[in-house]
Amino acid sequence: MVTVDISNIWGSVSLPDLLNLEAEISAAHAALSDGTAEGSEYRGWMDLPEQELTAEFVRIWESAERIRAESDVLVVLGTGSSCLGARAVIELLQGPDRNFGRGKGDPMIFFAGNSFSTRQHQALLRLMEGKDFSLCVIQETGSPLESAIALRSLKWILERKYGTDEARRRVYAVTVPESPLARMAGEADWETFFLPEGVREPYGLFSCAGLLPMAAAGLDISALLRGARDVREELNLRSFENPVWLYAAVRNLMHHSGKSAEVLAAFEPGFDLLGRWWQQLFSASEGKDGKGLLPVPAQFPADLHTLGQQIREGRPNLFETILRFDPPEQSVTIMGDVTDLANLNVLEDRTLAQVEEQAFFATLTAHTDGSVPVICIDCGELSEAGVGALLYFFQLSCAVSAYTLGVNPFDIAGAEPYRRELDRLLGRAGNANPAT
Amino acid sequence: MVTVDISNIWGSVSLPDLLNLEAEISAAHAALSDGTAEGSEYRGWMDLPEQELTAEFVRIWESAERIRAESDVLVVLGTGSSCLGARAVIELLQGPDRNFGRGKGDPMIFFAGNSFSTRQHQALLRLMEGKDFSLCVIQETGSPLESAIALRSLKWILERKYGTDEARRRVYAVTVPESPLARMAGEADWETFFLPEGVREPYGLFSCAGLLPMAAAGLDISALLRGARDVREELNLRSFENPVWLYAAVRNLMHHSGKSAEVLAAFEPGFDLLGRWWQQLFSASEGKDGKGLLPVPAQFPADLHTLGQQIREGRPNLFETILRFDPPEQSVTIMGDVTDLANLNVLEDRTLAQVEEQAFFATLTAHTDGSVPVICIDCGELSEAGVGALLYFFQLSCAVSAYTLGVNPFDIAGAEPYRRELDRLLGRAGNANPAT
Repeated sequence: MVTVDISNIWGSVSLPDLLNLEAEISAAHAALSDGTAEGSEYRGWMDLPEQELTAEFVRIWESAERIRAESDVLVVLGTGSSCLGARAVIELLQGPDRNFGRGKGDPMIFFAGNSFSTRQHQALLRLMEGKDFSLCVIQETGSPLESAIALRSLKWILERKYGTDEARRRVYAVTVPESPLARMAGEADWETFFLPEGVREPYGLFSCAGLLPMAAAGLDISALLRGARDVREELNLRSFENPVWLYAAVRNLMHHSGKSAEVLAAFEPGFDLLGRWWQQLFSASEGKDGKGLLPVPAQFPADLHTLGQQIREGRPNLFETILRFDPPEQSVTIMGDVTDLANLNVLEDRTLAQVEEQAFFATLTAHTDGSVPVICIDCGELSEAGVGALLYFFQLSCAVSAYTLGVNPFDIAGAEPYRRELDRLLGRAGNANPAT
Repeated sequence: MVTVDISNIWGSVSLPDLLNLEAEISAAHAALSDGTAEGSEYRGWMDLPEQELTAEFVRIWESAERIRAESDVLVVLGTGSSCLGARAVIELLQGPDRNFGRGKGDPMIFFAGNSFSTRQHQALLRLMEGKDFSLCVIQETGSPLESAIALRSLKWILERKYGTDEARRRVYAVTVPESPLARMAGEADWETFFLPEGVREPYGLFSCAGLLPMAAAGLDISALLRGARDVREELNLRSFENPVWLYAAVRNLMHHSGKSAEVLAAFEPGFDLLGRWWQQLFSASEGKDGKGLLPVPAQFPADLHTLGQQIREGRPNLFETILRFDPPEQSVTIMGDVTDLANLNVLEDRTLAQVEEQAFFATLTAHTDGSVPVICIDCGELSEAGVGALLYFFQLSCAVSAYTLGVNPFDIAGAEPYRRELDRLLGRAGNANPAT
């Protein structure tokens, strides 16, 4: 379902290089699976695809149905990668403009609580004006200031609008036990979901933190989990037939050979946010201990004239990974025209998807001719199941790649100096970071 | 109006290093101003801020007024940085969700024609259903396939909806003389704007290519140009009092010292697309001849836990530039609450903008403690005039920086192998690239 094609990397690395890495990849994969490596207490995400038949999953689904029935707008407050990932999957499958024309029965979804921007906050309040709304607040560790401030403001509006009793029915909390949010939710009697043991940022997408917003958007979260579950066996293979091994190995070889950044591109504008989710995943997992490739998402063909040029002709310290999806079922056909000043009639009756395929091949030729190593990942269909498989593949590849690199993918302490300093400057007691 | 603070870079470079570069920066600036360097025929953008009193500017403004009066939706078709820049300025000043609730008198604006995505095309047609619309098609060189295909499809819809006569009043073309689009526009009698001599991608933002969509969105393009004009003198200083010199010099020093990427971050979610415009500008201008820093936009605080960690603790080959804007006039005050489980009452009566300021200082401390060089750019107010000054500053800095690096900022031939290969694969005659 996910295949990795490494036939365009050989200018930079050799087959013996790859084979020499086999033992290290194998050891990293085994350490991850067996829980023998540092950080093994955070491997809970690996089993999330299996949760479909649990009572907790049914409760997520029922809450989403209630949100959809009762609200024109769902506001999701959260700072982390799970929120970004949920938003990204929604955009990829339903389009960046999916909110237009939606309302009760199939609500608009706005993501907030991830900044201190006055403008963003005021714009959100304008968008919510006169609309029935629910709140979903997601705090996966401690009490991040961004979402805590937004929650206080929106809770106040919610209570003024609906009264305390109705307001409490409209808040959904996702958090860890003993957190400030867990205590608030307990006192206020909000519907509350706890992250499963051993799941934390940035590996929470398949937990309640990602599933609840996706289900509220109308996505088939059963199919998403099924997609992830269906690839698990294939991704557990202990050989280079496993696409996880290929991707993790080539990334490590690029790192060793002095490449400094990986550009990830797709020919789908709706992929933008998922590119940022990928960036957060790999940056948090590998960017530490003086190591790590810089992950840089791009959009093709839009960036081909700028980043595309730099990849090909700038410093030779970049490589790229290009994602391909199956063409959609419905197609758009290019029409002929009597006057053909733009020389398009040669494309008459061909589809946009066929042109896009040629644009991919043209990119591949232009970049490999320029000695750029290119990894191609065939992602299958753009559906819940397809995306579930792809994102699970990225998570597993990232953890294996990080262990191969010699770093603990689940150590996120490097972000704490900022949070501690902010609490200090604001004179705020440090309940913000119980996880550290 | 734009100030560059380099007081947090000294761990990586020294004052003598900076002073040693003075002659090179001075020469690069002089070569740009005097037109004595390679690429000097493309310096037309430098004078664009002066166009406010021309008849052409009045025609842009009048066209925008007509679009606003007649249409619920304006669709802008274009592949280039000017379109991206116009969209980015609109998002920054009016918010990423500015299209909600807009219609005739103040139309929604959708940007398309920059991909071959079937999904994007179909979503656009759904958004336009039942709405009065106009088309603005922007082709700054040749006939890029993406926008040519989209134009053919939308022109057909426009003519079916309004009849040929009314349809021709609803298309606005921006291009260069003799291009396929210029000929189409001439035959169909569309309102047509020509890029001024010596202006081309990615330096077209202040030309008709950027101004028409911005004016149609209701932005004050006079103020935008005035902002750019007002900084011109200051940015023409020939000393390190000039922020252009500081920014260009430090970027070059970072390049020489082995840094591979510059992360540009702002604490404003609406800045996202402008970050991509900045990336395209610097990537196209400097990423060639085996040189160039990789420009990587980021969003703070959202990316502080991922990219922020990598900047601080990953490979020491990154530096960052943080943008700051004046706080908005209206403020949001944080409320107290009887139960204060999230420890927020310490912030009672403080504003979001004050917290954001502390988040900036916390980031600065956390990253400089981690030995990351940080450039801070104070951008003044978030208004048309402020943004005009900032974007002109970036353009000028980029051109000076590129010449200092020893590359021709205006040479964009590196993107041509892809276009040529695509035309070859599709069997399309090569009128696509008259510029090369």
